Amino acid sequence: VSEFELIKRFFADRAAHLSGLKHVKLGIGDDCALLAPNTAELAISTDMLVAGRHFFADVDPGSLGHKALAVNLSDLAAMGAQPLGFTLALALPKVDTAWLAAFSDGMFGVAEHHQCPLIGGDTTSGPLTISITVFGAVAPDEALRRDRARVGDDVWVSGTLGAAALAVAVRKRGGTPTAHCARRLDWPEARVQLGIRLRGIARAALDVSDGLVGDLQHVCERSGLAMNLFWPMLPLDPELNVLLEPARQRYALGGGDDYELAFTAPKTARSQIAELANSLELALTRVGECIPARTDATNAIAVLDEHGLAVQFERGGFDHFAD
Amino acid sequence: VSEFELIKRFFADRAAHLSGLKHVKLGIGDDCALLAPNTAELAISTDMLVAGRHFFADVDPGSLGHKALAVNLSDLAAMGAQPLGFTLALALPKVDTAWLAAFSDGMFGVAEHHQCPLIGGDTTSGPLTISITVFGAVAPDEALRRDRARVGDDVWVSGTLGAAALAVAVRKRGGTPTAHCARRLDWPEARVQLGIRLRGIARAALDVSDGLVGDLQHVCERSGLAMNLFWPMLPLDPELNVLLEPARQRYALGGGDDYELAFTAPKTARSQIAELANSLELALTRVGECIPARTDATNAIAVLDEHGLAVQFERGGFDHFAD
Repeated sequence: VSEFELIKRFFADRAAHLSGLKHVKLGIGDDCALLAPNTAELAISTDMLVAGRHFFADVDPGSLGHKALAVNLSDLAAMGAQPLGFTLALALPKVDTAWLAAFSDGMFGVAEHHQCPLIGGDTTSGPLTISITVFGAVAPDEALRRDRARVGDDVWVSGTLGAAALAVAVRKRGGTPTAHCARRLDWPEARVQLGIRLRGIARAALDVSDGLVGDLQHVCERSGLAMNLFWPMLPLDPELNVLLEPARQRYALGGGDDYELAFTAPKTARSQIAELANSLELALTRVGECIPARTDATNAIAVLDEHGLAVQFERGGFDHFAD
Repeated sequence: VSEFELIKRFFADRAAHLSGLKHVKLGIGDDCALLAPNTAELAISTDMLVAGRHFFADVDPGSLGHKALAVNLSDLAAMGAQPLGFTLALALPKVDTAWLAAFSDGMFGVAEHHQCPLIGGDTTSGPLTISITVFGAVAPDEALRRDRARVGDDVWVSGTLGAAALAVAVRKRGGTPTAHCARRLDWPEARVQLGIRLRGIARAALDVSDGLVGDLQHVCERSGLAMNLFWPMLPLDPELNVLLEPARQRYALGGGDDYELAFTAPKTARSQIAELANSLELALTRVGECIPARTDATNAIAVLDEHGLAVQFERGGFDHFAD
């Protein structure tokens, strides 16, 4: 099977029906794709997933294809951007048609759900590596940037926290996570509609990919403020209820892979956000507040218990060179 | 050295001065970059380079950084697009600061030359792999697409052919290519200005990355026609003169890595193209013509010698799964 046939069968042919979208002027097959974004501002994000580092080589390829695109769409969601398309660069150790069929099924399932067409790519042999770049449309000055939080803003988070981290922990110990936790880890949903609907309501936003506290630390740094989070208010995944407090705190505060959105919004937006939660049938929970910067900017986030005392937990986002 | 410090030192800090370009609304450091392309159509291309496949792991990192970006800019050039920015996804086996300094020097040298800022990226540990996605601006309906050639068009090529393939062949045999051939292979120039100036003059274009005949075959397929190329008219690199005819033909017709542009244009454009060559101080050579499709579409290209007889040579572009 030649490279061209491989690309055509699993990617170009499947990409074709979404490239009928009118903003795709030219899809796969030329030196470049041509996109007519019809927007003043374009949001762009890229990432790279490496076998043995971000996933195990024997992972379900359907889940891998799903997650590779979903985590990039989550970055668009975190900016409030409407997905327009994506490119895929893929290194494969060998041509395994069953693997490729499942991988592309998983990936195109997400692409079709969000009407986000594959517009270009590159396929090569090499150690299994996936690099996706996504493009989305935002209205000028409506992007949900990390540097837009203000003192006095509420801090919110969507959905629930900790189930994906629990699944990781169970697998690391050789166990099998519950179906619910495994689904949260392997088949995450990008909160694209939430991001779009938060335009004009939220001030700053990001997605919780590396752990709530580690991620919100970036908002604090870029917005020049600090935050108090209230442990009793956090929307823990119900499956964390059986765990002891230190484990619950570690997974909910420091665990990654939830792909929920955390955002700040003025207090005047509380009723709008409650209505949005109803409309999307998605929990949106107020978990803290933005306060003036502390003298120690590297620990901008304090997590307080019901007595107002600081919760100690295992800190730190995922560092791909240290972890 | 943490991932964040690594990114900051070698990439974000160096990207900062180009992100003052007014179309970059937000660079590295948020969930997405924000680009205000100020154009109706955006050209996008992505590729993935893998150590041991596209380059040797011990390659000069400066050359690698240069070439990784230059070959992507060559795709923009082949569409007639003005570079706007790029993203970089990079997997590294270890943190080697000398390597990273040289790699980013090579890459930012090209970025600065073409005013093409790094707007986003991802860095991880893993087998050495580079994936770049580039963005460029084209005016509506002015992109130099592969499907726009017409019967009667001249076929043109920029610069000279074969020196990069000669360098590859010499290295494969354990030798050291001449400085000229090594420079053509390791430090290619993207023909960005040529591509932009060909808007409204050329009909179809692509870059010669996989070999002149293999690449032009794609134009024939997408435009539904065939081509005759004339061997005596081809602009062979002077260093090929010492070789026997079969080797010269193999390198000039089937060898890749030249990153020149091949394009078709109506016969009425000949004087304009001659003026453009003078203005850019770059050879633009008429090498053939577009003719009606042959019955055998898989061999759409005939290369004819001075007697009108077909030249036989080693065919086939580079197939990353077969070669």
